[in-house]
Amino acid sequence: MSELNGAQSLIRTLVDADVEVCFANPGTSEMHFVAALDSVPEMRGVLALFEGVVTGAADGYARIADKPAATLLHLGPGLGNGLANLHNARRANTPIVNVVGDHATYHKQYDAPLESDIEAVAGSLEGWVRRSEHTKDVGADAAAAVAAAQDAPGRVATLILPADASWGEGGETCAPIPPRVPQAVDATTVKDVAAVFGAGEPVALLVGGSACREEGLRAASRIAAATGAKVFVETFPSRLERGAGLPAIERLGYLAEQVTYQLDGIKHVVVAGTKAPVSFFAYPGKPSDLVPEGAQVHTLASVGKDVTRALNEVADLVAADTEPVLQEASRPALPSGPLTPQNWVDVIGALLPENAIIADEANTSGLLLPTATAGAPRHDVLTLTGGAIGYGMPVATGAAVAAPDRPVLNLQSDGSALYTISALWTQARENLNVTTVLLNNRAYAILRLELQRVGAQGGPKANELLDLSRPDMDFVNIAEGMGVPATRATTAEELAEQLQRAFAEPGPHLIDAVVPPLL
Amino acid sequence: MSELNGAQSLIRTLVDADVEVCFANPGTSEMHFVAALDSVPEMRGVLALFEGVVTGAADGYARIADKPAATLLHLGPGLGNGLANLHNARRANTPIVNVVGDHATYHKQYDAPLESDIEAVAGSLEGWVRRSEHTKDVGADAAAAVAAAQDAPGRVATLILPADASWGEGGETCAPIPPRVPQAVDATTVKDVAAVFGAGEPVALLVGGSACREEGLRAASRIAAATGAKVFVETFPSRLERGAGLPAIERLGYLAEQVTYQLDGIKHVVVAGTKAPVSFFAYPGKPSDLVPEGAQVHTLASVGKDVTRALNEVADLVAADTEPVLQEASRPALPSGPLTPQNWVDVIGALLPENAIIADEANTSGLLLPTATAGAPRHDVLTLTGGAIGYGMPVATGAAVAAPDRPVLNLQSDGSALYTISALWTQARENLNVTTVLLNNRAYAILRLELQRVGAQGGPKANELLDLSRPDMDFVNIAEGMGVPATRATTAEELAEQLQRAFAEPGPHLIDAVVPPLL
Repeated sequence: MSELNGAQSLIRTLVDADVEVCFANPGTSEMHFVAALDSVPEMRGVLALFEGVVTGAADGYARIADKPAATLLHLGPGLGNGLANLHNARRANTPIVNVVGDHATYHKQYDAPLESDIEAVAGSLEGWVRRSEHTKDVGADAAAAVAAAQDAPGRVATLILPADASWGEGGETCAPIPPRVPQAVDATTVKDVAAVFGAGEPVALLVGGSACREEGLRAASRIAAATGAKVFVETFPSRLERGAGLPAIERLGYLAEQVTYQLDGIKHVVVAGTKAPVSFFAYPGKPSDLVPEGAQVHTLASVGKDVTRALNEVADLVAADTEPVLQEASRPALPSGPLTPQNWVDVIGALLPENAIIADEANTSGLLLPTATAGAPRHDVLTLTGGAIGYGMPVATGAAVAAPDRPVLNLQSDGSALYTISALWTQARENLNVTTVLLNNRAYAILRLELQRVGAQGGPKANELLDLSRPDMDFVNIAEGMGVPATRATTAEELAEQLQRAFAEPGPHLIDAVVPPLL
Repeated sequence: MSELNGAQSLIRTLVDADVEVCFANPGTSEMHFVAALDSVPEMRGVLALFEGVVTGAADGYARIADKPAATLLHLGPGLGNGLANLHNARRANTPIVNVVGDHATYHKQYDAPLESDIEAVAGSLEGWVRRSEHTKDVGADAAAAVAAAQDAPGRVATLILPADASWGEGGETCAPIPPRVPQAVDATTVKDVAAVFGAGEPVALLVGGSACREEGLRAASRIAAATGAKVFVETFPSRLERGAGLPAIERLGYLAEQVTYQLDGIKHVVVAGTKAPVSFFAYPGKPSDLVPEGAQVHTLASVGKDVTRALNEVADLVAADTEPVLQEASRPALPSGPLTPQNWVDVIGALLPENAIIADEANTSGLLLPTATAGAPRHDVLTLTGGAIGYGMPVATGAAVAAPDRPVLNLQSDGSALYTISALWTQARENLNVTTVLLNNRAYAILRLELQRVGAQGGPKANELLDLSRPDMDFVNIAEGMGVPATRATTAEELAEQLQRAFAEPGPHLIDAVVPPLL
């Protein structure tokens, strides 16, 4: 019998599998896990004050580290609080080892107040779920969870850990299990898709998933340059590499009207690492399927296949001698005057540091951002993959843990900020290099737009429910209350000056940028 | 065909069934519901910035109003964010009409980013779940939801509302459906239980649910006074009426050790409107079942039966000529000096206004509260029924909406506050009479205690995860940032002065009370 308890075997197994950060919001049933952190020095525990911060941080961490973090959540309610950002992680195909503590096995029969159906809630994530009933199996289950999380294309692997499995003696560590690598696309598919590009009809190539990194984008750009195909990145990529020196590839729009415009005249849509485009929401009388009528969809690589290799193979067939079209370095001039939806993005484009990570939850305020930052130095953009707002601050937090030497810029709309605002406290606690630009337009501006788009007639009561100005929120106060230095910017000059200062100083900063709504 | 759309028929039906408040955090799929608010003026929409505030407010509202509020949540992620406080509501048997918007029926096949399994998550609440697929059925489904929510003993009734059912024309209102009233306890059970009290062996009577109101407590007190039985209120009652002029009945303790002491020597446990006592968590080597060894459990009324009537019937048999023992009016003297875990509760006891509602999430800081407030003027105490922290601020918000003329006092520990802190913004927006005393001990103090109780050895890393002092949170800043006037108290005199001012002025206030940890 080993000298480890279950929790120790779990953490040791995670560390052996290169999982070295645990974002945690523990409770009583997780106390032995917490105590075990001291016996495995390689595991870093990062405390958050709300589970939505835990899960969003694990998502942001893995998007940048390319390996999973663990979470530690307190029973079913803790999982519930973390569910929205796990949903976003699911849509990003982010690997997460999601540890949910539970009552001791023998205690469940008593239906104590915190008892609930954890499996049902975890199952809704359509990932991997296992309950580790016996101490001796905890290590093996943990190794299986890490592998399941990383099996291509990545998923949320939930390990439910009963308190007695955690505190029991006789824990056994387990060697890492190699995850399934992405399956190659077969040669026939590659040839068939290559033929589509050569057939002389208008083609749009839509790339997603891991093809949104440099190598995949270069291949896509070569194909487009050689064949005249249009090329787009999926609307909400998990991680998009862009900026000067990389291919400048437009993202497919969020609004169906934009996509209709972007795909106008297209006869063939080739999807690579993503799915055919659909409307984010349904709108009365408008189609949900955004593939142009009469156009054919060709799948080069479904999600989870080796999309980058497949794109390279197609490129070698149709664009053997063609180089990708790379973005030249160029920045907007620093603007002046009161902040507007048009000029704040130019401040970002003008000042974005080399190798930055943007956690983008600017929503309507950010519509003009891609153009302003296209020629900025190389950077990563993380986006809201699953539509569950409140992702930006936690994801920025996790990204900063993964890359302590890179500047992280969280572009954060006000309406979405309050879901997970306590991420600021974790940023302060861990002294993370996150600069938050809080786009304070005092409205759920996107819902004002959507109210019109769904054809609803909003009266005073409806408009009241989309208004955030009564009372105004003072994000300088809120941030300082959580230990993050903060300032307010009302002009482009102030934003530029405060942004430069924030980037220059270590640790987190927040700028409450008072930008009127675009709409 | 009517001139109502589905959303209008839903809201009209709710209003006809006396559901007149909707706590909302809507998104695009709910825009027709939002627009429909303007066509049904009797429905009040209350905006929250996070779904955990929505669901907690609906819980607090119903506990005080004795009728359900509606919620409005945005698809699966919105339900996830609201799940923890719905869990507490489930454990409180609170009626809630939980409206969850979803994609249009025809849109679901496309697996758009926000698609998820709403039924699976809602089902974990073990209440009532229905998807309203057709516009013409929405009214009838809404009436069924209101009835299901109120069927004794009360539950969360989730109505999933696809966007096209909401926006479609041809909505039909439905007349209210009478909910099932609590079933009477049969005469044999009443007689058998009365005999237990008369048998000369030590009996403990444990009352819960609706018996925690004055009438049930008076009956329980009569039984105890006449027979010498011990009487206890369940550990976490949904709503407990207490104070001067009401029976003073001790609550069963949270810690197993307390319960063992309270039930020492007991041979019969009579449960009325609740279940036999179990440990909140499991602890190594300690029993989960807290009924003393060899004692018999007798169920007078299971949860959902007419417990108050049954208690009255037993009292009439065993205590026909006995009056209940009522608490005399008495308040602690106003203390002085730096705040301590001992003296802050005396300030509350000294100053609690007549007819106050206490939303109690003081956790370890509040261990001495019941004694200090026992003889204060009559008041209601709402407690954390399901153990999912982050309930206090939202429940206080909903209680204040239900009872605008009563002072609401939220006793709120710091660790739990950050889960749903944006409830303060809703309090400011609605100008609610909520006074929050924020017990700022800069720790998850309860977990420090629990770490010891589960027998875990915590080192520096473990202790770090239970510490909230790095950085300190400044709740004055945070509250003011959300529009709530706030002050800081470090002495008993300051707390008293600030509390009196807060009670005297309309609208919300927060007092950041710096109280060292009890442990």
